[in-house]
Amino acid sequence: MHAPSSAVVRFDETAPLKLACQQTLAPFSVAYQTYGALNAAKSNAILICHALTADQHVANKHPVTGKPGWWDTLVGPGKPIDTNRFFVICSNVLGGCMGSTGPASINPKTGTPYGLDFPVITISDIVDAQARLIDHLGIDQLFAVVGGSMGGMQVLNWAARYKDRVFAAAPIATAAWHSSQNIAFHEVGRQAVMADPDWHGGNYYAVGKSPRNGLAVARMAAHITYLSEEALHRKFGRNLQDRSQVAFTFNAEFQVESYLRHQGSTFVDRFDANSYLYITRAMDYFDLKSEYDDVLANAFRGTKTRFCVVSFTSDWLYPTRESRDIVQALNAVAANVSFVEIETDKGHDAFLLEEPTFFATIRGFLNAAAIKRGLEAAA
Amino acid sequence: MHAPSSAVVRFDETAPLKLACQQTLAPFSVAYQTYGALNAAKSNAILICHALTADQHVANKHPVTGKPGWWDTLVGPGKPIDTNRFFVICSNVLGGCMGSTGPASINPKTGTPYGLDFPVITISDIVDAQARLIDHLGIDQLFAVVGGSMGGMQVLNWAARYKDRVFAAAPIATAAWHSSQNIAFHEVGRQAVMADPDWHGGNYYAVGKSPRNGLAVARMAAHITYLSEEALHRKFGRNLQDRSQVAFTFNAEFQVESYLRHQGSTFVDRFDANSYLYITRAMDYFDLKSEYDDVLANAFRGTKTRFCVVSFTSDWLYPTRESRDIVQALNAVAANVSFVEIETDKGHDAFLLEEPTFFATIRGFLNAAAIKRGLEAAA
Repeated sequence: MHAPSSAVVRFDETAPLKLACQQTLAPFSVAYQTYGALNAAKSNAILICHALTADQHVANKHPVTGKPGWWDTLVGPGKPIDTNRFFVICSNVLGGCMGSTGPASINPKTGTPYGLDFPVITISDIVDAQARLIDHLGIDQLFAVVGGSMGGMQVLNWAARYKDRVFAAAPIATAAWHSSQNIAFHEVGRQAVMADPDWHGGNYYAVGKSPRNGLAVARMAAHITYLSEEALHRKFGRNLQDRSQVAFTFNAEFQVESYLRHQGSTFVDRFDANSYLYITRAMDYFDLKSEYDDVLANAFRGTKTRFCVVSFTSDWLYPTRESRDIVQALNAVAANVSFVEIETDKGHDAFLLEEPTFFATIRGFLNAAAIKRGLEAAA
Repeated sequence: MHAPSSAVVRFDETAPLKLACQQTLAPFSVAYQTYGALNAAKSNAILICHALTADQHVANKHPVTGKPGWWDTLVGPGKPIDTNRFFVICSNVLGGCMGSTGPASINPKTGTPYGLDFPVITISDIVDAQARLIDHLGIDQLFAVVGGSMGGMQVLNWAARYKDRVFAAAPIATAAWHSSQNIAFHEVGRQAVMADPDWHGGNYYAVGKSPRNGLAVARMAAHITYLSEEALHRKFGRNLQDRSQVAFTFNAEFQVESYLRHQGSTFVDRFDANSYLYITRAMDYFDLKSEYDDVLANAFRGTKTRFCVVSFTSDWLYPTRESRDIVQALNAVAANVSFVEIETDKGHDAFLLEEPTFFATIRGFLNAAAIKRGLEAAA
């Protein structure tokens, strides 16, 4: 599934990545896309951090699906994240399956894919791998780090652990720690994958199979959590698929069933099942305060970063309450923070959709920060 | 999995059950438990309708699990549903696996278990089978029909379709139609079962296997929806299971993971996977208004039944809004209805737990109705 169109930087045995689990990873690669041009002062770079099942193809046609980039509406020339002004970078997360090193990559010790021999990684590990990429690009300080959902976890981690390297940060539809309910949903997904006999204990690569059914079920369960009950009701209600009355079968008679099955079956064509296990695990482990004496404010003490925290009213996966926890921690250390809760019935997915207030918020935040940073005004 | 301790009434070929799908079912059996004594006037019978994964063992030790009955706290001598006063009946639903006819029963045409040759049933079919049992017991009018969740759907169906046979009705934590989100969760569960190779297209009985892994995943996903986010946070939070720090594995490191795995693995020991498919399907199909020109009030027009509708504040599977829809429909036909929303953080599961306000509500409702019905006062 490696994406031929992405640039890839490879760090060899001389530059291993020290992981939270105390293992080291070497060699490792980071695949990334860039948009726009880095200015001479290298002060206009924005790192976009992607969510669980996205990748580096933020604003270009996806090489596997042929679909537009996942934030194509937000990122591009003249768009809220304006590639005429900013140099935008997005890298596939460590553990991913679109060119960065992950469980489907070859383990140099065995010459075969890692499978479950890949070390269990964390959001800190993902961020550290990104930091290596930013070093490689010769950028000392990122103008901004922006991301939603798991991307927002990376934003918070960057802001806490690389304080001098982040001028502005926008954690969107996210939380400073993964909730019990969210761990529970992830565990269901992982159990679905691992229950599939085609998973073969994670070594399915060798037998030329993959746990497609299990991964599809995992995706279906997760997808429900990305939408609000209102959005499901509005989009599908109890409407039937291609029929006027129920047929008394177990086929996808309701539109919502058909929709979910489609989400499941298309996902497995572009995503590695073990990557799904590893990345969900990294999210479950995320608890930023745990590394700071269980006081979230400590994570941000001394920060000079400007923050814009965004939540969405109908997001029940990362409810506004959890964004408020972040804002309160930032306020406790007198950080520069603005907080916007966007009114929408679209659920967690709203951060990926065209929400005019959200777009205006990001545009305004970046514009104000750019002025502070001494970047040229927007044309 | 048939329960030797339950009474079973068998209806033979001379008394087939006409189903909503237009097929007929014969013979068919209904397994049931009773508690207390029927009075001479046969006017003190309460039918309790069970939820998706429960059964007739409402107030006695369960023959498979050895655990107390699922409503043991509510039903018994001196309890809110007082078996010193009332004759309580609970039958295993049609399609179930505890003695009533379902997909694991022998198909008389083949001499082997029905599997997917069992007809797809509805809540109306379940209620019609119960009505046969009530006929068999010689009871013209039930003093009350009480049930939560899918049990509440049966209560509503009884009240709409057997108006003269229901003196009082208590639909609890339920809805008059299954929502898009709830259909979606059920579909995930069914896909998990059907993705398990041990399901064998529903014919696993013949090979001596069952889709345990798939059914466990289905149960895990469903179980999350039975609890509130607050309850999960309070019970488990991010607490680790038998360890002080994360171990960087895919084991059940978090308590919530361990809890869910336990829920999944114990469920498969007592429940038939095909029954899970059929009963979830019956719930998905439930839309009471669809049989009444899409006007829910029409379902209750002319009713003399006294209603007590109960919802729970943190129930996101059957939110209070959906109980209000029922109440509004009852109000529209000037029915005798009281509505109580119970404040609790325990989610949908609250209807199975000791909630003093809920218990007092049921006790008070039945007591007032008993006086109207001319039953002896409580001792």
